[in-house]
Amino acid sequence: MDIRKVFGGNARRFRLALGLSQEAVAERMGVDRAFISSMERGLQNATLLTIWQIAQALEVRPADLLDEKASKIRS
Amino acid sequence: MDIRKVFGGNARRFRLALGLSQEAVAERMGVDRAFISSMERGLQNATLLTIWQIAQALEVRPADLLDEKASKIRS
Repeated sequence: MDIRKVFGGNARRFRLALGLSQEAVAERMGVDRAFISSMERGLQNATLLTIWQIAQALEVRPADLLDEKASKIRS
Repeated sequence: MDIRKVFGGNARRFRLALGLSQEAVAERMGVDRAFISSMERGLQNATLLTIWQIAQALEVRPADLLDEKASKIRS
């Protein structure tokens, strides 16, 4: 279990559930699209403050982004 | 809501529930006690890999460490 992949997979799933593009999420967070793309692929070792920021952008709780079960079943 | 304080408060609560000292958790993680102390006080902007490491050391799921409700009610 790579927590970066769990986090990225959940972020992607929540983004798609909201019908948002990577660009739209990037704009909400004030980062560029490449960062969102790389994060969703599990390539970013995000910090707590970034986790909080993306949870706000995706309208979920920070803990939801680390949920291993959700990541396995639904992504 | 400062996610660093939620995280630190939960980490402290889980550590005490296990009856472990900060030293013991630091040893399990291969870090020094000052890092655990500062993390529990919400002063560390921990990364995903550190969150995973401390979840292992405290025998909880990474998502449990970001649970806002648990942090408010029980810490």
